[in-house]
Formats: sequence, C-alpha cells, structure tokens
Amino acid sequence: MPERGQVFYVAAWNPPEDFFRGLPGPKAVFALGAGIDRFLGRDDLPADVPLIRLTDAGMARQMAEYVLAGVLRFQRCLDLYEFQQFSGIWRPQPARSAEETRVTVLGLGQIGGVVAATLAGLGYAVSGWSRSAAAVPGVDCRFGNEALEPLLGETDVLVNILPSTASTRGLLNRARLGRLPPGAGIINAGRGDQLDLDALVELLDAGRLRGALLDVFPEEPLPGGSRLWRHPKIRLTPHVAAETLPAPAVGQIVENMRRLEAGEPVSGLVDRRRGY
Amino acid sequence: MPERGQVFYVAAWNPPEDFFRGLPGPKAVFALGAGIDRFLGRDDLPADVPLIRLTDAGMARQMAEYVLAGVLRFQRCLDLYEFQQFSGIWRPQPARSAEETRVTVLGLGQIGGVVAATLAGLGYAVSGWSRSAAAVPGVDCRFGNEALEPLLGETDVLVNILPSTASTRGLLNRARLGRLPPGAGIINAGRGDQLDLDALVELLDAGRLRGALLDVFPEEPLPGGSRLWRHPKIRLTPHVAAETLPAPAVGQIVENMRRLEAGEPVSGLVDRRRGY
Repeated sequence: MPERGQVFYVAAWNPPEDFFRGLPGPKAVFALGAGIDRFLGRDDLPADVPLIRLTDAGMARQMAEYVLAGVLRFQRCLDLYEFQQFSGIWRPQPARSAEETRVTVLGLGQIGGVVAATLAGLGYAVSGWSRSAAAVPGVDCRFGNEALEPLLGETDVLVNILPSTASTRGLLNRARLGRLPPGAGIINAGRGDQLDLDALVELLDAGRLRGALLDVFPEEPLPGGSRLWRHPKIRLTPHVAAETLPAPAVGQIVENMRRLEAGEPVSGLVDRRRGY
Repeated sequence: MPERGQVFYVAAWNPPEDFFRGLPGPKAVFALGAGIDRFLGRDDLPADVPLIRLTDAGMARQMAEYVLAGVLRFQRCLDLYEFQQFSGIWRPQPARSAEETRVTVLGLGQIGGVVAATLAGLGYAVSGWSRSAAAVPGVDCRFGNEALEPLLGETDVLVNILPSTASTRGLLNRARLGRLPPGAGIINAGRGDQLDLDALVELLDAGRLRGALLDVFPEEPLPGGSRLWRHPKIRLTPHVAAETLPAPAVGQIVENMRRLEAGEPVSGLVDRRRGY
C-alpha cells in the first residue's frame, strides 16, 4: 500500500462508504465500469475531483456475444434439445432461419446499438426500441411508450439491456409480458428491477413463454432460496454479460492519465450533476 | 401418389433400397441435401439419369450458427454456469475475449469457409485446416497431415466439419485429442466416424478436456443405451446442425427443373464417378 500522501489517482469499483474520506485530494477517480451509481451522491468525494468512467472497454462486444448465445439457444432449439437429451429422446425440431427469427432489443445506447447491429449483420430480423429516437443501420428502430406494446406482439426473442432509471423500473410487467406471442423467449441483461419475475415464472409454467436467460436480478447475488435456481426453463448467469476486461480497461485509464498530465481532454468524464 | 407413368422428377433423401427400380426413367433425381452417399453405388438408379444435389440452401449459414452457439458456450462459460446453477452457486468466472479464444475449424469447403469467416468476423482467433490448401480471409489456414498436430496444441475450441471420406475416418483419435491443451472444448458436426468417442469420454472424465457439443454419431439415432445421453459435459443434438431449409431447397429445385426443361445447365449436378 502506498502512503496516503502518495495517492495521485484512484481506480475503484463499488468503493465502500467513507473510502475517499481523508485521501489527500486525488487528481482523478476512475470507475472500473460503465455504471457509476456507487460514485454519485456521496459526501466523501469532493465535487471538484474529476470522475471518469470506462466508455466501452469491450463491454458492448461482450454484451453482443451474450445476447447472441441466448438468441441461438432459442432459434436453434438448444433448450428443447437439452430437455430431450435428459429424457433420451432423438427428435429433430423444425428448423428456423435467422431471417424468420424476430429479435427485439430494448435499449439502443452505446451497448444496445452494437448488440442490435451484430444480430442484424448475422441475418436476424431485428427491431430496436428506446425511450427517445435512435437509429441503427439494418434495424427497425421504434421509440416511445406507445410503440412498445405493438412491438412486443411481433417478437420471438425479447432482449432487455435498458439502464436502470425511474422510467424503466418495472417496465416488463405482467401486462407487457402477456403481449409476447406464445413461445417467445426472454433475455434480461439490463437490470433486475425491470422484469416482473413472478409473472415470468407463471408464463413459463403455463407454457405461454418458452424460456429465459437471466443475468441480472433484483437482489444480487440471487438468494439461495429463489425458485429461479431450479427452474428448468430458466438459465441464469451471475451478472457477467458485460464485464470489465482488464486489458482495454487499463489501456483507457493509462491513456486518460497521460491526457490529464498533459492537460488534454479525457474520455468518459462524468457530469456528476446529470449523473452520467 | 401419382401413377408411376406420371413421374418426371424425383426429390428424395435416404431413398430405400430398390426405390428407383421400375420407375419409368425420371428426367432427374434431386437429392434433398448436400451429401449424396445414399444415391451412389446403387444399381436401381440408371447411370444416365442426372443426379442433382442442393448446393447450399442455407446450410452453411446454419452450420455457422450451430458452431457459434458451441464456441460461445465455452468462451462465455455457459457450461460452467449451468453446473453452478444446478448447485445454487453464484460465482463469476474470469472473462475471456473473442480475440483470446483460439478456434480451429477442420474442413474449409463451401460450408467450412463460411463457418471460419463468420467466426473471424466476430473477432475470434480462427485457424482452419484442410487436407489440401485453402484460403479464407482473416483465417490462418493450414493444410496437410503434418500441420494438424501442432495446430491442435494451439486450439481452445476444436470444430470438426470435415466430410466423411476414407482419409478423415478416425482422424480425431486418442493421440490427436491428447494434443489439445487442457480445458479445450470440442464441437463435432462433421461425421460420427471421425471422432473417437471412448477417448473423448476418458479425457472429459479426467478433466483434461472441458466439454463437447456433438451433432453426429457413428450410429444415428444414437442408441438409447449410449452413455453420451447422460454425460454432464456433453450436449448432443440429433444431426440438426445444418438441415435442409424448405424454402431455399424448393427454390433451387424448381429453378433447376426450369433449366432442365429449357435445356440450360443446372447447378449441383453430381459427377457420379467422382462421387460429388
């Protein structure tokens, strides 16, 4: 550990309460992720210390991989083949092409845009939805609350990667999930407070929805008693869809340190009043 | 059923013995797949009847999807997360980027080329191997028997999509599987007679190899007594990696019928002496 007087920069994720108190005014704080919720609204971090987040660091590509794995699972019936394998059944399921698979991506920001474009590039019939207008080449982009429910009715695989805000909390409620066509699959890699898990489990158990791949949960780690762990139509992962990769993260931080020392503008500087 | 005198064209897959005997000389026979093993060396099909196979009909794209699903399963640790889910364990595994994932594709023909190029386009470190020289943009292509074993030593995910020939039978034997680095995964969507399943199961049980996704088997359907059905590190599918899709297949056949009637050259005409 360096002496406290020697600290020039801090790079951290989920810093504990009062972590910054008493540090002799670091030149900048680097958040080791894209979300910076844990760095805002705390009184141990002086307002004049620049807060810098990672701008991508491979996270969009990783999210595209994760979503693609889930889409392929449903499109290519890998979920059904797992059930069949466990029962010793050899039975080809009807083939469905990428063009026949309608994927809807909720959230078209820096990460969602890459996800939607990657799927479109592989031939899927991709729609995107965001609260305000966005454009992604090859993707049927819609926006606003009124556009959401009709779109859900035309969705074979629903992909949620919206950020957590007051207006996205509870978005995928029972009524909206009920708009999905029979047999639709769900991938949630946004936030755990956006998807009604009780409604999801009921629709899965009723055979209305096909399956779900879940990476985020209202409480993380997911409590041991949750019925999600053992649900045969749910696959869950421990919030790993888009992790910080060490190499590009370190590269970004080092480059931003160089720019700070040279008095140049940095990338990823957070406006702490706006919150991003 | 039409009267036999009304048969002008036959489109078939796995025609039973003597199926063609007594048919009044169809103008052409269409094989409903890319492989035509079952149409060769039979004496009920006169040598002067044109035999026409499907040339792609979406099969290369489907194979790329299937292989990609398998590569993502290993790269993104979805196999480990399944084990953890069944045990109620929340534990992120170290992230690995596409660039850090060395995928080797055995077989660089019409289908293998599309598979390798698709993976390379998504950022994977792709090598390809074929018996004779081939070139795929963005792919490190090697060829010949002597190049195979060193390449296996640098492979995180081994993908076999070689056709079944005298020289590929038994190719992935115990010695060659043993050259793979610890923790490598295997995807077999070539033929079932190319992979030594006893050696595979031993290497999986010893923890030397990580897992396998198998679509083809020495005997199909896979016999009910096979230990592969219940092996926790094996996922199997019933020979569906690249199926004939109805719409493009029918389109190709109708177009070839039109060309035959117009006296134009057809696509996919088989040289029955060469065997393809």
